[in-house]
Amino acid sequence: MENFTASAPGKVILFGEHFVVYGEPAIAVALDLRVEATAYRCEKSIVEGLRTPLVERAIEEALRFVNRSGEAVCVRLRSNLPISVGLGSSAATAVAVIASITGLFGVKPSRDRLFRMALEVEKTVHVNPSGIDPAISVNGGAILYRRGRGIEPIKLGGDFTLVIGNTGVPRSTGAMVEKVRLFAENHPRVMDRLRAAASSIASEALEALEKGDVEKLGRLMDVNHGLLEAIGVSSLELERLVYAARRAGALGAKLTGAGGGGCMVALVAGKRVEAVVEAIRKAGGEPMVAPISRVGVLYGNG
Amino acid sequence: MENFTASAPGKVILFGEHFVVYGEPAIAVALDLRVEATAYRCEKSIVEGLRTPLVERAIEEALRFVNRSGEAVCVRLRSNLPISVGLGSSAATAVAVIASITGLFGVKPSRDRLFRMALEVEKTVHVNPSGIDPAISVNGGAILYRRGRGIEPIKLGGDFTLVIGNTGVPRSTGAMVEKVRLFAENHPRVMDRLRAAASSIASEALEALEKGDVEKLGRLMDVNHGLLEAIGVSSLELERLVYAARRAGALGAKLTGAGGGGCMVALVAGKRVEAVVEAIRKAGGEPMVAPISRVGVLYGNG
Repeated sequence: MENFTASAPGKVILFGEHFVVYGEPAIAVALDLRVEATAYRCEKSIVEGLRTPLVERAIEEALRFVNRSGEAVCVRLRSNLPISVGLGSSAATAVAVIASITGLFGVKPSRDRLFRMALEVEKTVHVNPSGIDPAISVNGGAILYRRGRGIEPIKLGGDFTLVIGNTGVPRSTGAMVEKVRLFAENHPRVMDRLRAAASSIASEALEALEKGDVEKLGRLMDVNHGLLEAIGVSSLELERLVYAARRAGALGAKLTGAGGGGCMVALVAGKRVEAVVEAIRKAGGEPMVAPISRVGVLYGNG
Repeated sequence: MENFTASAPGKVILFGEHFVVYGEPAIAVALDLRVEATAYRCEKSIVEGLRTPLVERAIEEALRFVNRSGEAVCVRLRSNLPISVGLGSSAATAVAVIASITGLFGVKPSRDRLFRMALEVEKTVHVNPSGIDPAISVNGGAILYRRGRGIEPIKLGGDFTLVIGNTGVPRSTGAMVEKVRLFAENHPRVMDRLRAAASSIASEALEALEKGDVEKLGRLMDVNHGLLEAIGVSSLELERLVYAARRAGALGAKLTGAGGGGCMVALVAGKRVEAVVEAIRKAGGEPMVAPISRVGVLYGNG
């Protein structure tokens, strides 16, 4: 049986979530937690694994790209990326599914084209996706992303570990984006100034990342977290994990992704990793040491 | 025995603490929790109540004002204002002591002069006091304060109750002000933008206060709290009380004063007061319904 496998990584946003929707820069890194899709020819389309409107839309998009719209294709999905916690599982799924199907038909879209197809697919789950998730999933490593201006790869300097803490509280990206939209509508001047602050933070963070100034990077994450609290997307459960990580010696900690639940991320120097993991667990979160992936979408039967 | 009594209220800052040190506007209201000082002639100076460098400095300042430097004077202090929790006990003490002594000698300094003397006295406990505490203690009611530009009385509209929650965690205003100074030094551009945001929040809050738009006022307190978290002066204990109040139906909640411990304040509509008080208690804080005082310094044996 002819088949083709492709995989794509999840992500964690280090700086700029929400503000990225308004055109400010954001910084994300790819995680070595991947969604793997295997496409194969079949009589009647089947999705093994999670069948969602998003997967169906990705299949459609891929078949159109290879001029096979309406034909049957089957996809088998596997993932070690937690879903619906802000780690980019939707985008990784979209990227992996499209890449596996286009690969099956012997075609490889450009990275930019793949990004644009995955972004279209994401619209089935998010009304107004910023594009940062498919951008980092396609490209891997670390990127600076600005809506409409595409990506800028970042050279990662410095020695640090990312520890993610999952609150276990479900979140809705759509509801949080809408909450911020209402805030921006009601307080346009305040929002403008918070956007400007978020933009400065991202610029300083870019510099700190490239220089490997991990202490500065950590402090900037703390500041960014405050901005996210200001626009109303933090929660007590997130605060608990954020403060637990900081008190256990993290260089910085913030909520990541849409907020209101979901995950926080801590920047940790090597020798404090265990202490931070333990502190997050004790504070009621599910900790996870998050390996960074230099590789984005990966084609071929691995 | 000839004696003279004066009293002065404490305060709670609703908007702009810390940023006020950098010239941004802040809004404070006087609390009907007062320090009362009774001055009387005596052979050898005695302070009944808390004898502190601040009280001694206030006595000195007052005696100089009435041209009696070096003479003996005794002061008896009483207070129902908790000390060292950010409710302005230092300034209220300074104002009450000065007013009682000048009163004893039959002189009444102008409000502005009294403010300036109390500000001098505050320098014995804070390196770089913004002046907001003595300003509100002298004037009472609600004021907009801007360093170097003095005060603007605010007409309070709307029906709301302030509930204060004391974390019980001691704080050091000096350490917090220094922390923010270092932050501003290391991240000047970010700080500029946060200051601009704080300024916008205070302007919107002024409008909301005068209109009596308590819902908007509450939301702005939440936003202001996020800015304070961004500059590093919140704590897990404060977050616990802030979220407890919000979840119990407060219209808004934020830390107040220097932060790092001390108190938070919640803006609450009448029917939710009990629920918020209870929620703060359950979250480990000491709740206090805070009556607003229209009256600042009060002269005379009351």
